[in-house]
Amino acid sequence: MSRSIDLNSDLGESFGPWTMGDDAAMLSIVSSANIACGGHASDPETMYGTLCLARDNGVTVGAHPGYNDREGFGRRIIPMPTVEIGRMVAAQVGALQALAKMAGTKVTYVKPHGALGNLAAADRGVADAIVSAVAQIDPHLSILAISGMQLEQAARSAKTEVYSEIFADRGYLSNGQLVPRGQDGAMIHDPDEAAERLLAFLETGLMPVIDCDPIALNAQSICVHGDSAGAVAMASAIRKRLSAAGITVSGFARG
Amino acid sequence: MSRSIDLNSDLGESFGPWTMGDDAAMLSIVSSANIACGGHASDPETMYGTLCLARDNGVTVGAHPGYNDREGFGRRIIPMPTVEIGRMVAAQVGALQALAKMAGTKVTYVKPHGALGNLAAADRGVADAIVSAVAQIDPHLSILAISGMQLEQAARSAKTEVYSEIFADRGYLSNGQLVPRGQDGAMIHDPDEAAERLLAFLETGLMPVIDCDPIALNAQSICVHGDSAGAVAMASAIRKRLSAAGITVSGFARG
Amino acid sequence: MSRSIDLNSDLGESFGPWTMGDDAAMLSIVSSANIACGGHASDPETMYGTLCLARDNGVTVGAHPGYNDREGFGRRIIPMPTVEIGRMVAAQVGALQALAKMAGTKVTYVKPHGALGNLAAADRGVADAIVSAVAQIDPHLSILAISGMQLEQAARSAKTEVYSEIFADRGYLSNGQLVPRGQDGAMIHDPDEAAERLLAFLETGLMPVIDCDPIALNAQSICVHGDSAGAVAMASAIRKRLSAAGITVSGFARG
Amino acid sequence: MSRSIDLNSDLGESFGPWTMGDDAAMLSIVSSANIACGGHASDPETMYGTLCLARDNGVTVGAHPGYNDREGFGRRIIPMPTVEIGRMVAAQVGALQALAKMAGTKVTYVKPHGALGNLAAADRGVADAIVSAVAQIDPHLSILAISGMQLEQAARSAKTEVYSEIFADRGYLSNGQLVPRGQDGAMIHDPDEAAERLLAFLETGLMPVIDCDPIALNAQSICVHGDSAGAVAMASAIRKRLSAAGITVSGFARG
Repeated sequence: MSRSIDLNSDLGESFGPWTMGDDAAMLSIVSSANIACGGHASDPETMYGTLCLARDNGVTVGAHPGYNDREGFGRRIIPMPTVEIGRMVAAQVGALQALAKMAGTKVTYVKPHGALGNLAAADRGVADAIVSAVAQIDPHLSILAISGMQLEQAARSAKTEVYSEIFADRGYLSNGQLVPRGQDGAMIHDPDEAAERLLAFLETGLMPVIDCDPIALNAQSICVHGDSAGAVAMASAIRKRLSAAGITVSGFARG
Repeated sequence: MSRSIDLNSDLGESFGPWTMGDDAAMLSIVSSANIACGGHASDPETMYGTLCLARDNGVTVGAHPGYNDREGFGRRIIPMPTVEIGRMVAAQVGALQALAKMAGTKVTYVKPHGALGNLAAADRGVADAIVSAVAQIDPHLSILAISGMQLEQAARSAKTEVYSEIFADRGYLSNGQLVPRGQDGAMIHDPDEAAERLLAFLETGLMPVIDCDPIALNAQSICVHGDSAGAVAMASAIRKRLSAAGITVSGFARG
Repeated sequence: MSRSIDLNSDLGESFGPWTMGDDAAMLSIVSSANIACGGHASDPETMYGTLCLARDNGVTVGAHPGYNDREGFGRRIIPMPTVEIGRMVAAQVGALQALAKMAGTKVTYVKPHGALGNLAAADRGVADAIVSAVAQIDPHLSILAISGMQLEQAARSAKTEVYSEIFADRGYLSNGQLVPRGQDGAMIHDPDEAAERLLAFLETGLMPVIDCDPIALNAQSICVHGDSAGAVAMASAIRKRLSAAGITVSGFARG
Repeated sequence: MSRSIDLNSDLGESFGPWTMGDDAAMLSIVSSANIACGGHASDPETMYGTLCLARDNGVTVGAHPGYNDREGFGRRIIPMPTVEIGRMVAAQVGALQALAKMAGTKVTYVKPHGALGNLAAADRGVADAIVSAVAQIDPHLSILAISGMQLEQAARSAKTEVYSEIFADRGYLSNGQLVPRGQDGAMIHDPDEAAERLLAFLETGLMPVIDCDPIALNAQSICVHGDSAGAVAMASAIRKRLSAAGITVSGFARG
């Protein structure tokens, strides 16, 4: 049984006068922060403020690049050549890296956001472009990828360090994909139920699915949402249950 | 007499479908390129393309951050706390640095653009904030500053390597400032006249002014404009005259 | 004593995924809604949704144009020629007008936002430009202006219908201006105290000031804030106290 | 044989400091101007300036709304619910209408731009949404649609006045669609060849296609491009040839 796991969350997604989620509360709970980089959300002040909070809480910092589409919050696929995706990701990661230096911390991994993350999970060409861009920026950067999908495999092929995540509050299908939103079993709203599933998974390596027997998944991190109502309560409850079960919550290893 | 001088120009200022200037032509003339970083102009593709052209032409690369104001092209002062200026600059410089790695080149200096450059020349607090941000991002980055102004002094005080520039096509006042646009003598339109002035300056260290005797200026670089009609002709003529006079055009020294 | 007064609030200031304030609650309280037009805040969906809510609540609709500066929420003066301000305002008002037609309602007045509103209060040239733009778009549009300031006078001079507002939660100086934020007496946090002042003003036409005897102010509308914590409680308390005192809350007259 | 035809072009597509095409030259040639509305291109100053030029040249004004995607110039489909497309179009058309009033002219039709235009040509739901939005804004607005496609039919069904266009410099397929860019015959570069085709079409109502006998097309307008190299020369040559053949170039009829 895994005695240690990472908790990650998408943070730093405010913009100008608008607030998204409760970053300060979430940063006292998670061990890794995927910080938006000015593409789908954020701006220099939001990035810097979130980086300082992460530093103060000893939270590992990842870059969370997304489509340059604030109005759509990076949840829409903006059609663009694959080769341009790498450059878009690089510009965003670089912006966060520079601000991390000002905040006295460091970006150690990259996790693509929203529609870009889903595309990187499904499309090997996009996954390769992202992995290649990240490696060119800094070969010490690792990738945080959805367990079992293309981005994870692209990183492995490129010998880029990669960590895999499962979702705390989403149901799974036997093919390893998430139950689509809107279908029965897509969302797990009860923190206790979510925690039970995660504890069972950590003990067995098997994840319950809605259409079959539990499946084996590889994961070093659990993604908890940071931007919805109840996000802090869910994340807090999960962390408490993990701790009570003797599981250490800590950022995935970094050299 | 100086036997070597840098020629710098603001480049990479296209955006999406819109082109500004003839970067390819300018990059065959200048020795240093101040490349816009997505603030007042540019986008990841423009940055990357300009970086590749600079690399191919052996041109030294600088970051050219400006206010996040494409509509105003960074020529308007956007009121913001000084401390936020440093973070804005950092995000832009970091974006260009990451893309420079992808392009196989390197950002070696920072020159603020337009209204931000003018403010940094006039306001020591802003100058200090920019120098401090640049040093925190990478202590090897140098500053390219307007000769004799606050940014130059701020960099000296901070022990940040700094190079100074004069303008090829602008008239000077005896206080070392430029003749304001719109006044007689503000602009030098004739390439031969501009080249004569520069050659005289390189020989004597003295710059003609419109209201007094020539003044001493310190400069390791000459700024030629890249975005106006006639920009390429002006830059080309100046480079030819410098070469004919035995002056080498090369980027300012970088360790 | 006035037996009727308008309550107005700045609404429709969400953007993309980000929410600002509780528009649905505020629209059940106020009689006039100043709806952001995509400049300092909002987007077509937010505008349309807010217009529909205003229509459903029988709330009078005003356009609330601001500087094209979402990152600064229209609270920064973006330097631009006065003549361009009129065009900026027109584009925003026109956008809201078209969406109002789709929502089955109508824009009846214009109130400039934030830094633009303050500039229009202080600078007659800017005030004239806004009044002129509004009149050219539609001579039936009226202006909602801060009581006693330049925009009110500019509208009067141009024979544009104008209504004046006082602020529910701000202290006044004897020159009719607001106590600057940060100074003692700038903000009134207690709904009861705010309501008392307003009732006294409605009875006497005199507004208490912090540095002298009460002053006469002209007002057909009271501005209540919509975007801060406690905004709904403050607005609700004021409305209840006004009603209890027999004051009708209704939009200012429109021909 | 038609003795009169409209020439339309996409204009007003500059943005801030960046210029696109030569609007002044094009406005001395065309009879209708599709003016960008701040979505894929333009800003209040560009809209206003283009409207003034159109007015001075007696050119009919249309709104040219596109996706809110300046970086992609409206050439990328931004995924969004169909119902939101109508609101996006309305906001843009309204902005141009208000500025047209300031410029002393009037928006009389709407032609969707780029990817939005292509989608409206192919997708009846999107076409209906645009026609419906336009009718709600102003029932006197007509639609300029690609000949034979969904938008034309949607407007007819809704009893909205509709005019159809063919392209001066594009090859056609026997199904009435354009030869895709990149294929042989997609582009007609020679102004004489383009003019010949148009004259033949005006005489016969039949358009040559690359894969079959000429086909019948309905058109009251010819679209000439305004933003490419050679655009002015092409448009000018076509206009001269039309005039020499006794064809009057004038805006399509408006009630």
